[in-house]
Amino acid sequence: MGGITVSDRKQFRDLATPEAAREAIASLELTGEPESVPLTEARGRVLAERIDAGRDVPGFDRASMDGYAVRARDTFGADEAEPAVLARVGEVHAGEEPDVSVDPGTCVEISTGAVMPDGADAVVMVERTDPADAVGEGDGEGENDSDGDRIAIRTTVAPGDHVMLAGADIAAGARALGPGTRLTPREIGLLSALGVEEVPVRGRPTVGIVSTGDELVRPGEPLSDDRGEIYDVNSYTIASAVEEAGGSAELYPHVGDDYEEMERLLSRAADECDLVVSSGSTSASAVDVIYRVIERRGELLLHGVAVKPGKPMLVGRLDREDGGESAYVGLPGYPVSALTIFRTFLAPALREAAGLPEPETATVSGRLAVEQRHGEGRLRFLPVGLLEAGGDTETVVGDGYPLVYPVDKGSGATTSLVEADGVVAIDPDTDYLDAGERVEVELFSPDVRPPTLLGVGEDDPALNRLLDGLDRPRYLPVGTREGVRRLRDGLPDVAVTAGPVRRSVEAVDLGGWTREWGLVVPRNNPDDVQGLVDLIERELRFRNRTSDAGLRTALEAEIESLADERGIDREEAIDAIDGYGLESRAFESPARAVAGGDADVGLGLRATATELELGFVPIGIQEVRVRANPERTEKPSVARLESALAADDHLLGLDGFDSTGGS
Amino acid sequence: MGGITVSDRKQFRDLATPEAAREAIASLELTGEPESVPLTEARGRVLAERIDAGRDVPGFDRASMDGYAVRARDTFGADEAEPAVLARVGEVHAGEEPDVSVDPGTCVEISTGAVMPDGADAVVMVERTDPADAVGEGDGEGENDSDGDRIAIRTTVAPGDHVMLAGADIAAGARALGPGTRLTPREIGLLSALGVEEVPVRGRPTVGIVSTGDELVRPGEPLSDDRGEIYDVNSYTIASAVEEAGGSAELYPHVGDDYEEMERLLSRAADECDLVVSSGSTSASAVDVIYRVIERRGELLLHGVAVKPGKPMLVGRLDREDGGESAYVGLPGYPVSALTIFRTFLAPALREAAGLPEPETATVSGRLAVEQRHGEGRLRFLPVGLLEAGGDTETVVGDGYPLVYPVDKGSGATTSLVEADGVVAIDPDTDYLDAGERVEVELFSPDVRPPTLLGVGEDDPALNRLLDGLDRPRYLPVGTREGVRRLRDGLPDVAVTAGPVRRSVEAVDLGGWTREWGLVVPRNNPDDVQGLVDLIERELRFRNRTSDAGLRTALEAEIESLADERGIDREEAIDAIDGYGLESRAFESPARAVAGGDADVGLGLRATATELELGFVPIGIQEVRVRANPERTEKPSVARLESALAADDHLLGLDGFDSTGGS
Repeated sequence: MGGITVSDRKQFRDLATPEAAREAIASLELTGEPESVPLTEARGRVLAERIDAGRDVPGFDRASMDGYAVRARDTFGADEAEPAVLARVGEVHAGEEPDVSVDPGTCVEISTGAVMPDGADAVVMVERTDPADAVGEGDGEGENDSDGDRIAIRTTVAPGDHVMLAGADIAAGARALGPGTRLTPREIGLLSALGVEEVPVRGRPTVGIVSTGDELVRPGEPLSDDRGEIYDVNSYTIASAVEEAGGSAELYPHVGDDYEEMERLLSRAADECDLVVSSGSTSASAVDVIYRVIERRGELLLHGVAVKPGKPMLVGRLDREDGGESAYVGLPGYPVSALTIFRTFLAPALREAAGLPEPETATVSGRLAVEQRHGEGRLRFLPVGLLEAGGDTETVVGDGYPLVYPVDKGSGATTSLVEADGVVAIDPDTDYLDAGERVEVELFSPDVRPPTLLGVGEDDPALNRLLDGLDRPRYLPVGTREGVRRLRDGLPDVAVTAGPVRRSVEAVDLGGWTREWGLVVPRNNPDDVQGLVDLIERELRFRNRTSDAGLRTALEAEIESLADERGIDREEAIDAIDGYGLESRAFESPARAVAGGDADVGLGLRATATELELGFVPIGIQEVRVRANPERTEKPSVARLESALAADDHLLGLDGFDSTGGS
Repeated sequence: MGGITVSDRKQFRDLATPEAAREAIASLELTGEPESVPLTEARGRVLAERIDAGRDVPGFDRASMDGYAVRARDTFGADEAEPAVLARVGEVHAGEEPDVSVDPGTCVEISTGAVMPDGADAVVMVERTDPADAVGEGDGEGENDSDGDRIAIRTTVAPGDHVMLAGADIAAGARALGPGTRLTPREIGLLSALGVEEVPVRGRPTVGIVSTGDELVRPGEPLSDDRGEIYDVNSYTIASAVEEAGGSAELYPHVGDDYEEMERLLSRAADECDLVVSSGSTSASAVDVIYRVIERRGELLLHGVAVKPGKPMLVGRLDREDGGESAYVGLPGYPVSALTIFRTFLAPALREAAGLPEPETATVSGRLAVEQRHGEGRLRFLPVGLLEAGGDTETVVGDGYPLVYPVDKGSGATTSLVEADGVVAIDPDTDYLDAGERVEVELFSPDVRPPTLLGVGEDDPALNRLLDGLDRPRYLPVGTREGVRRLRDGLPDVAVTAGPVRRSVEAVDLGGWTREWGLVVPRNNPDDVQGLVDLIERELRFRNRTSDAGLRTALEAEIESLADERGIDREEAIDAIDGYGLESRAFESPARAVAGGDADVGLGLRATATELELGFVPIGIQEVRVRANPERTEKPSVARLESALAADDHLLGLDGFDSTGGS
């Protein structure tokens, strides 16, 4: 493929409506072939046909109590005071064929579950009987009297008492379970009672996943940053979403934008699957190639839908070698967009084909935390995060609905997948949603649960340990300044700050610690770095933190006072540091660059240097504080964070970390 | 083992409270060893440890648009009217290493996802560019000017525009996912972005299931009714409930009440599993044996709990060969009781050990359909059925809560497993619950959904087909008379009657059909049966239906008129029929007895005879009617049933069936 020009690109000018997209997908045949699975693997599957009882359950008249099998008429009139005394002529246990019958005046000892002996029509519970010796001479008159004990029956029973007749539970030929029944443990129980070993179930729709993009590499394989390779995200995300929706996913090898190769791969996937889904590439050329393959080797039903994100969606059919057809859907390339479109349009169709109901936990009601303006004239799926209001009614935030807030990272970010919990569908006619408005969030998965705690601010190893001890926290490492700003805006439960906070914020201090920071250097400090001066005066490759990091602020303050001290210009000092502009977003990254030989000096913590077995040149001590939204201090997750802070376990073994207690 | 006497039996006099049972179970160690699973199998599992990013994502500065990589300062001042013209010196696609750098005055064509070439710090979207020829002479001044095209840049970009910097998505060393995170498709996506191929997850607790009872046979194996064998229900029910709760189930061979064998099996299961569950036998002797094994080979923490059902529950520990311990729980023998106790006490403990949250769909609120009296002084789990109120708000029954009604079959019936949907816990202090009261139903499984339709009455092959076409119907084949009684009491949506209805009921007739009934005989009628007279006058083995069946009522009426005709006594005629008292509960059962050689003549339908390729001697035509609860005719499921009745598809190919239309 040559250069990309505007005229080469598919313009999707005639966008289909979302309803048309749903209809196009509904027109596809996704249902798999019915199959037979062993009973032990049938849970969660859906019956393909009605199951009638193949036999009576129980298959015989069955004692339902431990006691004595009798002829009911032999007990007529018996009671506590005047028992009937019967001759015990034998016994029968569960799993045994009776070797004796019950004649008038006799009884047979019987266990729960045992076959009723011939002649008997009722069971007397053992609790209503006694050995006859205990009551003196009885009036038993059975002919086998001499063979066994004599039993006093202290109650009158009617025919059928404590007996389950053959077929009383379910009779041969009766309808047991209908087609479409989802098999949960209880249905498995009924099927086992019927002796069903192989269960006819609906086939799972098979979904072939074709990823486009020369830059994609499977997890586990080596990656070249120089060639701009990245790990394949969509294939795995969509494959597990397919399985979650009741389908069976098959991953196909990656393919670039070569027409022949794409055609071969799509044809093979079509031959082998009920549905072929392509995703991965965000490049227009690959989409163009797919488009051409579908048009030539099948039928394109729809290209482009008036939704955001998801505009480049394709729906069509692919011919199979056997003369049949496979369904085809092309998803957008960005992970959040791909999952949104899958969840909205494809998952319901797959569940329908698999015979599974829409999960009740697929959506959650919440209240919008901030107003939302919209004016795009097309359906918008706004990625949003959720925040649990709090478990306890007394400490609940607002009216108990979770808070819903937009997640505004670019949809190309894979972290959006976990920072957003789902999407809010905003219809083309809505141009304003007020803060506090009730909205329905379509969760990315029915198993997604709102986080219990939302924290923002600095990143720090002790903080990571604190978070590990909480249940479903969400933490956005946006740095101190941005963290304080967001806390002031009222959304997060807590903000974590490092170093001095310039703008004041109304907050409740939950506790904190100090951390020693400085320059991370290779083991044994081979360049003999003594301090910041060496960075300025010598040729050392430095690795910095981003300007939102508390360590960066501390570094800048040190450089400023160093410049003052030496009477040089601050900017000049900074320009003299090679790599000052090479910024890392995580506290460990500069040290990793040092460990990997990509830098001589990195901005970082003593604890990191110790952990990575690197050298360390101390510069200062910085205070880290956890500050709570004043309205959320009673929220259970915030209270748990406060106790964890007080316990100080998160500081154990972290070199250069120290407790400061509450402020 | 010898005879059972009262003194031999464990009496469970000191019953533990349900809270003590919960505590005893909470004291057991159920957690499995952490393990590592491939990413493709990680969905639904729970992270055993925190995952930090092992690398920057992306690993390089990445173009996030198709367009031209530029030095931002070369575009300063450019706009639609006065474009900057740059020399295009090369191109770079996703997955390629750039072979060119961007010097002042030049640009490189770039695809989304490609590596930014050296020198470039921003991308201009292709939409904001044109080939420079189209604008006449530009002012490009790059030294490679002569090598390529000239591109007009019609906008000003800032450094970083449309570029995702290395590590901007997630930086090496940053906290990606916390321990305890449940892996849904989105987390799978993030893990794949990080290149994580093997995921450290919490181990599933392994649960060994030991079934006690000599009478138990595995589904798929032959069953002897003579020996009183039945298929094992509890093992399969509990095994799938274990899997549903996040555990891994292992079935052990059945064991009788032999001490040595039981000890060997329980010890083996303890060595191999985190938890051993026994269930199956309802016989006191087997429970006694288990009790003795646990006391000798471990520790019994609790025997007997003050709940109904579930009194005989055992909780303890079993020693392992390696010096460790395995947890032990003994469940009651009846399937519904076993599942109730599992669901209430064990499933939450297993989920906790597996790190899974309590499912939100584990309980459902409903309104009690009938009053409930209770006075047992202990916690009662009442098995109940649910009935969906109706999907549409306009046609909803009551206030939209499903109806809850007790299922009063003995808990020994396996059909209770599917006729009840869960249990209502009634506290020892509650002795009365009014009809209409709000109750919480603890569902047998989070996947259980209330039926959309509750039907009662006659059983019939055409009806079975109608039911097959509905979504989640529940039908109780209680016969015509009982069906009418229940419809009058107001619970069911519809009752199906066969033959004349003696007691009037206010109902809306939805439609019906007629069916031909008579005597089913072997193929070609070898005994030359001509009619009922042969049953009375000859030695033929007959198989009847139960007295609740419409066919039985019709048969009785025929016998009565035959007796009148011939001037004989009705009772005498009945006594003369060999097997008149052998009653089957399903319409097909007598015919199956004929097919199996167990009877010479069976009461049944022409359609059944035709289907089983048997002979048939007609006696009469019987009308079957479907009658709706007058308050439910607008309910969507009832309306669907009515349309299905009108369509008559359910009668196709059923020999002797005829349409009658509405009444």
